[in-house]
Amino acid sequence: MENLIADRMSDIPKSFIREMLKIASQPNIISFAGGLPNKDLFPTESLTAATENVFKIYGNDVFQYSNSEGFSKLRAYIAETYSKKNIDIPAKNILITNGAQQGLDLIGKVLLNEGDGVIIEEPGYLGAIQAFSLYNPYFSPVAVSEQGMDLQQLELAISKRTHKLLYAVPNFQNPSGITYSKENRVGLAEIIQKKNIFIVEDDPYGELRFSGSPQPSFKTYIPDKTIMLGSFSKIIVPGFRIGWIAAPDAIFEKLLIAKQASDLHTCNFTQYIIHQYLQDNAIDTHIERVISTYSEQCQCMISSINRFFPKNVQFTQPEGGMFLWVTLPSGISAMDLFDIAVKEKVAFVPGTPFYINDKGDNTLRLNFSSVDTATIETGIKRLGNAMRKLQENQR
Amino acid sequence: MENLIADRMSDIPKSFIREMLKIASQPNIISFAGGLPNKDLFPTESLTAATENVFKIYGNDVFQYSNSEGFSKLRAYIAETYSKKNIDIPAKNILITNGAQQGLDLIGKVLLNEGDGVIIEEPGYLGAIQAFSLYNPYFSPVAVSEQGMDLQQLELAISKRTHKLLYAVPNFQNPSGITYSKENRVGLAEIIQKKNIFIVEDDPYGELRFSGSPQPSFKTYIPDKTIMLGSFSKIIVPGFRIGWIAAPDAIFEKLLIAKQASDLHTCNFTQYIIHQYLQDNAIDTHIERVISTYSEQCQCMISSINRFFPKNVQFTQPEGGMFLWVTLPSGISAMDLFDIAVKEKVAFVPGTPFYINDKGDNTLRLNFSSVDTATIETGIKRLGNAMRKLQENQR
Repeated sequence: MENLIADRMSDIPKSFIREMLKIASQPNIISFAGGLPNKDLFPTESLTAATENVFKIYGNDVFQYSNSEGFSKLRAYIAETYSKKNIDIPAKNILITNGAQQGLDLIGKVLLNEGDGVIIEEPGYLGAIQAFSLYNPYFSPVAVSEQGMDLQQLELAISKRTHKLLYAVPNFQNPSGITYSKENRVGLAEIIQKKNIFIVEDDPYGELRFSGSPQPSFKTYIPDKTIMLGSFSKIIVPGFRIGWIAAPDAIFEKLLIAKQASDLHTCNFTQYIIHQYLQDNAIDTHIERVISTYSEQCQCMISSINRFFPKNVQFTQPEGGMFLWVTLPSGISAMDLFDIAVKEKVAFVPGTPFYINDKGDNTLRLNFSSVDTATIETGIKRLGNAMRKLQENQR
Repeated sequence: MENLIADRMSDIPKSFIREMLKIASQPNIISFAGGLPNKDLFPTESLTAATENVFKIYGNDVFQYSNSEGFSKLRAYIAETYSKKNIDIPAKNILITNGAQQGLDLIGKVLLNEGDGVIIEEPGYLGAIQAFSLYNPYFSPVAVSEQGMDLQQLELAISKRTHKLLYAVPNFQNPSGITYSKENRVGLAEIIQKKNIFIVEDDPYGELRFSGSPQPSFKTYIPDKTIMLGSFSKIIVPGFRIGWIAAPDAIFEKLLIAKQASDLHTCNFTQYIIHQYLQDNAIDTHIERVISTYSEQCQCMISSINRFFPKNVQFTQPEGGMFLWVTLPSGISAMDLFDIAVKEKVAFVPGTPFYINDKGDNTLRLNFSSVDTATIETGIKRLGNAMRKLQENQR
């Protein structure tokens, strides 16, 4: 019966990262491989209290079928949060999704015919590559660096063929940890403004800034072309699967129809709990606690890298988020390093899956959000040892 | 920017039913239009207690990212439930989804290339038509009647072109309320057995049998070709969005990849609560209570129809589920009836949306699960009046 499988599934290999994460979860291995928030920071007591309040206030309303748009009070809260940042998105343009990941799927469903052009960051978020891949687009990767997207490469890509969308994680990007500068955002917006292209601004980490200043959203420059994705996964909890799409009128209704066809609506109960938690608690205080911890862990990772990694290894210095990106000397394979590192009892994700076309063999992603500082120090030391062993082997 | 929308969205009109449900939800209108379980039957206290227990037992584990397959204990429970019915489906072949609706989307994603043949019941479940439509299949409708699917029509449809899947709701079908007889199931399985076609057996209502005997699943006849969809929406609560796909090995891994790309995983928290509820409570006792209420409401609707509808109106006599199907005399339009009925303060869903190709103009669906018996009697009386007015107008 396997021959009945649709063509769109043929290019999607069994997830390499899932296999890798299985190895990384073996006992005694220090893992920088995952992309998990630190579960010690989950506001368990406040969520327990919010849940009790939801039962008291709403009774069995939370159990019934609901509309596809999402809980109206939660949509209003999200619109208000944007408004406080001088971003004008009315609640009617907000669609609650099962995490921002579902937003990617719905955008692909609504916009992408087979072969349509999608500009993707290089390296780029694997979940976006996977979600869009199922609609068989043509990916045009454009490099990102510490300044943001390479605008020359972008202009070149756009001149070569038409594209329907550009996908970007401009704040503390996954996987690289980089943030687009203001100048880069302005330049990018100017390029897109002239074209008939949507930009998907995925911003799961935006609130988690340790240093520097917040940069403007593309929504402030090209509002009619910007689709924003947001999520409570990194600032409250991911297991509730509550994210959203904030989309212009031009496609909102189609996204809603796609949502309805995909699963009718997002879980009511957790939408209500998130909203109640936001009513009953000062989210900013909680976020400050998350920032403080992640910042400390990030600094610990950087200082440990400076102590323990060979000097010919480069790495990014994130201003926020959960990831840091490492570049080994050219010719040194992160896949080879992975095998040695696992023997040293430390794991990470090699960079290649974040590239279209198997590039980035000498890169890797390190997660610092889910591991405490003592463990980070030990793990980075082990990884430094593994790097030395690999470089010695290759001499 | 509207011109960027993908071709697959072009055939999906703004949901007619959603517009209709808005009208039906106006004050003082008795609505048989929705498809909602009766919220007075939701086990609110037990679910509240189960939620407290989940917090106590699992702590903040329920808040973290999880695997795409779903909560292992819930998958094991579902496998065990099948096993008690002598259906052999190991837990490893069960994928937790956001309601069975997501199962439809994932099956479409994994199996359907543009133009692939899908056999669909006529009338058929609108959510399935919508979900599959987004993958641009070729629908071959096959009539269903009180006996089940029309096997001659099925043979004819299959002889004319190849098909990848057949979608069926064999128990208390939505929208018609009919149930496939055992003979019909055997005959259908024999036809499919010879072909390279998956059958999708969607069974959200199967537990809600008021009369007659349970009929065997297609899984017992053609196990390698049967994909089963199940849901806790109708037997516990729908707002948690917990359903599942039980799929053969041939496509399980692909469904899992599609799930991961679509939204990473289903809400953890409600998976844990459903599982805990099932541990702490006798679900059979709860289901008996639901059956008893729906059975009474269904009988009330039938006796009210016998009293108040014109004698030239036909209707199905469901053995379970939530719906009953009405056929007006040929030439009488249920859309015309809808307008008059709304003036009489009663609403229903006209049958046409459940057909491919605008058939069924003289049919309509009545829901009996969400309305109490006194209201059913009043509503059916109003609807009978509306039918008489329409027939008089047309004389």
